Amino acid sequence: MNEEEEEKKRKMVKNLLPNKQIVLNQSVSGYPKESDFGLRSSFINCSLSDDSSQAVLLKNLYLSCDPYMRHRMSDQVAHPGTIIQSFTPGSVLVGYGVSKVMESTHPRFKEGDFVWGMIGWEEYSLISSPDRLNKISFTDVPLSYYAGILGMPGIAAYVGFHKICYPKERDCVYVSSAAGGVGQLVGQFAKMIGCYVVGSASTKEKVDLLKQKMGFDEAFNYKEENSGSALRKYFPEGIDIYFDNVGGRMLDEVILQMKAHGRIALCGMISQYNIEEPEGVHNLFSLIMKRIEMKGFVETDFDHVYPEYVEFCIKYLQQGKLVYVEDVAQGIENAPAALVGIFYGRNVGKQVVCIANE
Amino acid sequence: MNEEEEEKKRKMVKNLLPNKQIVLNQSVSGYPKESDFGLRSSFINCSLSDDSSQAVLLKNLYLSCDPYMRHRMSDQVAHPGTIIQSFTPGSVLVGYGVSKVMESTHPRFKEGDFVWGMIGWEEYSLISSPDRLNKISFTDVPLSYYAGILGMPGIAAYVGFHKICYPKERDCVYVSSAAGGVGQLVGQFAKMIGCYVVGSASTKEKVDLLKQKMGFDEAFNYKEENSGSALRKYFPEGIDIYFDNVGGRMLDEVILQMKAHGRIALCGMISQYNIEEPEGVHNLFSLIMKRIEMKGFVETDFDHVYPEYVEFCIKYLQQGKLVYVEDVAQGIENAPAALVGIFYGRNVGKQVVCIANE
Repeated sequence: MNEEEEEKKRKMVKNLLPNKQIVLNQSVSGYPKESDFGLRSSFINCSLSDDSSQAVLLKNLYLSCDPYMRHRMSDQVAHPGTIIQSFTPGSVLVGYGVSKVMESTHPRFKEGDFVWGMIGWEEYSLISSPDRLNKISFTDVPLSYYAGILGMPGIAAYVGFHKICYPKERDCVYVSSAAGGVGQLVGQFAKMIGCYVVGSASTKEKVDLLKQKMGFDEAFNYKEENSGSALRKYFPEGIDIYFDNVGGRMLDEVILQMKAHGRIALCGMISQYNIEEPEGVHNLFSLIMKRIEMKGFVETDFDHVYPEYVEFCIKYLQQGKLVYVEDVAQGIENAPAALVGIFYGRNVGKQVVCIANE
Repeated sequence: MNEEEEEKKRKMVKNLLPNKQIVLNQSVSGYPKESDFGLRSSFINCSLSDDSSQAVLLKNLYLSCDPYMRHRMSDQVAHPGTIIQSFTPGSVLVGYGVSKVMESTHPRFKEGDFVWGMIGWEEYSLISSPDRLNKISFTDVPLSYYAGILGMPGIAAYVGFHKICYPKERDCVYVSSAAGGVGQLVGQFAKMIGCYVVGSASTKEKVDLLKQKMGFDEAFNYKEENSGSALRKYFPEGIDIYFDNVGGRMLDEVILQMKAHGRIALCGMISQYNIEEPEGVHNLFSLIMKRIEMKGFVETDFDHVYPEYVEFCIKYLQQGKLVYVEDVAQGIENAPAALVGIFYGRNVGKQVVCIANE
């Protein structure tokens, strides 16, 4: 080794930072368990080399635990048009999160900026193509909100409700998984324009939260009350809009209770993610007789709506007319448990993991 | 009985015409059979009394055999928003048909007019609220076309394709039950705007018809070829538009082969009408990942489009750029067999029953 190489090596070692990471141990089938994930002690080069001309080095602050991540844990069969790629066993999880820029060679970002977007489940991430990261300009709210109400779940709730459901005053709106990161917002957005809103959740605590804090007109515990009966009770004349976060049998039941010309926004199907064969939905003929539109959507198709949404959202947050409940786990070590927990409904509100302070 | 009453009675008897009718013997479960229907020899008063001030008396020429009629044969459970009412056992079937006006006390109709719309399955019908009957102004085509291409199936194909599927040039379009009264038109409409079109049907004869007469790019016999394999073969890059006439397992299979941002028009689900429990559709999560819009529709919501459609259709018929294949049964006695036959795919083209000449 010549002197130049030695110097290079010394410099590199000096720049290495310890970097704890969450890795997928193996492809998941059925419900994920904590042992499907591992904590790896790694190192990251905290100095951007001169040739990484469009990169950012991030200190990660919050990780977002989102149901869609379940798909990335499975072995996938490719079909035309699918957009989700599986995590490779042994690799670091990737998901939405909030971070602080430590170093940047990308013209849009500078040291000290806060950003949200796709990051690794690790203490520090080197993002070599940061074009899709969002710079955070408004910091007078909890930064974790950019993993929730001001991030992907927020925009999903907003576009899913306003652009997919065509809501109008007095529409009867049903939201499943209503106390989650998306559902709690859909209900509040619907109340803002004068809809009648009913939500379902898995515990009494969440049901109370929906009625007392989120302003839902009614809410029920689908584990204690038969969903068909509850829907008939709370929607004696039927449902105009169903914002579906759960799929499966609940969707099947709701279709029967929809009004003519109803709209169903398919946002997620968490009830189906951990079972081998998805449940069959049997009542689709009613979509014809009732002329129902059922539409799947992905919020990334609506990036252009984000500026409008942030403006709207921050105004209402400042006025206290919009609330957001988060369930914040502490420490990267606890990230797997937090992620697994959302598939059992253990979270109350949007689940995030705080892995560092600014 | 006084003289006035006697006179009334004499006059009534004199005006009575024999009127053969098809009645539903009993509610149907499973596949309908000819014995579910009966031929009744009845009489109809062929003189409109002075107080029926808005009625028409019709001589019925063609009856339309349509899959949706299966629902009216069942006992129904009412759900919000459904639009189909069951036939009462013992009563005359009602369906789309083409008729000649024998007598009218309604200002819009006069003797000799041809009309299409909802009529009884009988030789003569007294329609006391004829507002929804359509007057036929263009008679330079077979009158039976008003039970098909120029009637309900035609407008269903037109609005279902153009208003529900948002088609554009080079879209890859799949039509099930493609040789039926609706499907054959959807394929031709799609070819007109430069789509790639594949249809499926239940016999070699129909498959040949689709390719040789209707201009479909490809067609397959779903009873001989596995639908999944056929779809992968004919749509190597996936399907943009699925015009669904069959539902059930076929729909489930198609969803997997749809491209991102695909559109599914739900027109009918004939594969599901004769089974006790509809088949479950398991692949709805793909609607989310692929942002697919699936929409049920009923052509009666698009009555305002009918004039535009007729103009378009007649122009292309006259130019020989649109063809329509009918399967015409002869005689009201054969109407039950013709109706039952469509649920076994016995018809080649649109099934109608000719019960009288002009």
